[in-house]
Amino acid sequence: ARMSSHDPGKCSVDFPVSVVLPAGGTGERTGLQTPKQFCTFLNRPLISYTIQAFERVSWIQSIVVVVAKESTELMTDIVQRFQHKRIRVVQGGSTRHRSIFNGVRALGEGGDGAPRVKPKVVIIHDAVRPFVEEDFLYKIATAAKEHGAAGAIRPLVSTVIATTAEGYLDHSLERARYRASEMPQGFTYDVICRAYERCSESDFEFGTECLHLALQYCGTNAKLIEGPPTLWKVTYKRDLAAAESIIKETLSRSACAITGGSAQAAVLADALQKTMGALDVELDVIPDMMGDNARYLLKGWNFIQVSVSRRCLSEVRATVSALEAANRALLYPVVVVWVHLNGSDGPSLGGGTATAEPAAIMDLASAAKLRNILLYGVQLHRSEEADHWERSVLRMAEITSVLIRERSPALVGQLLQA
Amino acid sequence: ARMSSHDPGKCSVDFPVSVVLPAGGTGERTGLQTPKQFCTFLNRPLISYTIQAFERVSWIQSIVVVVAKESTELMTDIVQRFQHKRIRVVQGGSTRHRSIFNGVRALGEGGDGAPRVKPKVVIIHDAVRPFVEEDFLYKIATAAKEHGAAGAIRPLVSTVIATTAEGYLDHSLERARYRASEMPQGFTYDVICRAYERCSESDFEFGTECLHLALQYCGTNAKLIEGPPTLWKVTYKRDLAAAESIIKETLSRSACAITGGSAQAAVLADALQKTMGALDVELDVIPDMMGDNARYLLKGWNFIQVSVSRRCLSEVRATVSALEAANRALLYPVVVVWVHLNGSDGPSLGGGTATAEPAAIMDLASAAKLRNILLYGVQLHRSEEADHWERSVLRMAEITSVLIRERSPALVGQLLQA
Ligand SMILES: [Mg+2]
Ligand SMILES: [Mg+2]
Repeated sequence: ARMSSHDPGKCSVDFPVSVVLPAGGTGERTGLQTPKQFCTFLNRPLISYTIQAFERVSWIQSIVVVVAKESTELMTDIVQRFQHKRIRVVQGGSTRHRSIFNGVRALGEGGDGAPRVKPKVVIIHDAVRPFVEEDFLYKIATAAKEHGAAGAIRPLVSTVIATTAEGYLDHSLERARYRASEMPQGFTYDVICRAYERCSESDFEFGTECLHLALQYCGTNAKLIEGPPTLWKVTYKRDLAAAESIIKETLSRSACAITGGSAQAAVLADALQKTMGALDVELDVIPDMMGDNARYLLKGWNFIQVSVSRRCLSEVRATVSALEAANRALLYPVVVVWVHLNGSDGPSLGGGTATAEPAAIMDLASAAKLRNILLYGVQLHRSEEADHWERSVLRMAEITSVLIRERSPALVGQLLQA
Repeated sequence: ARMSSHDPGKCSVDFPVSVVLPAGGTGERTGLQTPKQFCTFLNRPLISYTIQAFERVSWIQSIVVVVAKESTELMTDIVQRFQHKRIRVVQGGSTRHRSIFNGVRALGEGGDGAPRVKPKVVIIHDAVRPFVEEDFLYKIATAAKEHGAAGAIRPLVSTVIATTAEGYLDHSLERARYRASEMPQGFTYDVICRAYERCSESDFEFGTECLHLALQYCGTNAKLIEGPPTLWKVTYKRDLAAAESIIKETLSRSACAITGGSAQAAVLADALQKTMGALDVELDVIPDMMGDNARYLLKGWNFIQVSVSRRCLSEVRATVSALEAANRALLYPVVVVWVHLNGSDGPSLGGGTATAEPAAIMDLASAAKLRNILLYGVQLHRSEEADHWERSVLRMAEITSVLIRERSPALVGQLLQA
């Protein structure tokens, strides 16, 4: 079991933990044709974001995704395309509980060559709750080990009421005494296996709550832990938009401006840094991505190539190539904005060079887009007038921020005017 | 009471109905500083969208918005700025129930000069549920009149569980027997007044559910009606993104292309119509907005001015002026895309005209933006080669669609290349 390489300062666990992700839902409630776990935003299906949330936790041994028979191939493709590790795709049963049981059983079996270590704790999570974080998984795993079972809860959003058979209010529940049961939940391998071995066909057919089975068949009262609001379940089409906006916000908090070592470019980058800071994008200014600055290449999602002469398009090309070589855009589209200060090397219009430039950036952008790198250009005209210059810098910052935030594939290759 | 001018085919009511919108919440759960009802998207605070949902229902007599003392001025400004009608702003109490009672009392009082007609039914709704629709309000109003009280319900999203004092699972509720109580709710004026007159200080202080007060103090079992998922409450920052995405989708379903009567422009508009149709934007092609076509001016949110010669920027100017004169962008930003086919009147670069063009559209766009009209340009180059031409048309359609969908203020005035 690989439980060694975790971040210092983060809690780890000293027992084997594996994950079952039931992903057999049909998504009839989203108003979409595709089951919601396979709906795509920023070029990637929702379930891949959820898998990623577990993959980045070093102490998780393996992840079993349980899918409907007809989705097996699609799921296998997703695992390959996004290079997910420590994952097995298992075929589900006819109900949610049958699917989860299939997943749990798969964890105990050998197969695929390698021998398996039976997990001590099994975490069960929904494929459509992509924002679960390591510290909460840690709480669930350790509480499950200690108490046999543990589950996430949230305060009730609405009052819960009982209705009469005729559709009238019977009574309302006292909100403070109840909680909503959410995911993830954790169980010792023994408790979850015993619960499923002992439970009835009716439980398999109509039951929804694993915690309930653990209580009924193993006498285990699950420990309940309040989770963050980000645990919410992506259910409707609007939830996909919400999830996308959360990811986009996360990706657009910071950017890295590369000056190529030019002093003029550094002055422009500093102005950009100040203005984008006011727009909530933290900008680091570096001359290149050599040495220590190679870390930006490994962690950044947004790059601003600042240039003051036309030949700097070759610098943009180099940045795009470095990102491609590092396979940086595998999970998220990476944005590269070429900010170009005009007017330093002769008239900007009228010659063959000027007409060639928009075509060159469009060609470069079209090629980069195939690798999930989104390239845009922003042109800024030199001005001696302070007012005019400030307006241009502000517009450049606004345009750059919006390109970073919206990550619009349709606008790649455009040369925008600040 | 004005209950006359409703759309044929829609149900109306023959008794006076008024609305109380409690809007005193502090929004601590959004993770935002501004209370969520005052958070803004597409240039307008959430509460204005909710007010609009009631305003467009002809049989609603008046709307009382109840706000905290410190928000009174802000709320009054919002009412003025978006020209909301049939609305009064009332100061709230120290709890939700005290605020609602203030609103109900205000409905019964005279004041502001005009005498008031006491409503037969009072609808209570949340300021942060902007997507309530007329047909559902009709169901609530008529059920409230018949049964004394009526409320929206939704199926439970999660299992509801009871916890022990120590934080363990006690038992889970059988999901099918319970419902989530949502908004809107409706009451006869008599029932809601009596309930509040009779209820205790403790109810005013800690109670949350008006339906419960009607049951306890008037013996009225509310009729429960299942509402659509769009009734959900905007609670977190992600819900604002979800609400924005719903509005944006609604605004971008269709557009209107204006050809100016040119045959060449009509050919281009037809190609655009076909391609945008495949991108789920329904495009109507018209020569101008005269006569019968004036209806587009009155109902459209997206205009595409197709032109084949440079002087057509004056046509764009005319369209923008017409939209301004009609006050069309009061509630939603209106998008105008100037699609310009290049190459029909001489070389497009090298002269003073070419450089002047981007500046002219930027100036026009900057002025229009102040009136909530978002103007963008898309340039298309004539090509004899069929493949190249098709790619350009596709790109033009993609760019235009994304401009319509994203409504990005930072990109106005740009002349994009298809
Ligand atoms: Mg369960
Ligand atoms: Mg209530």
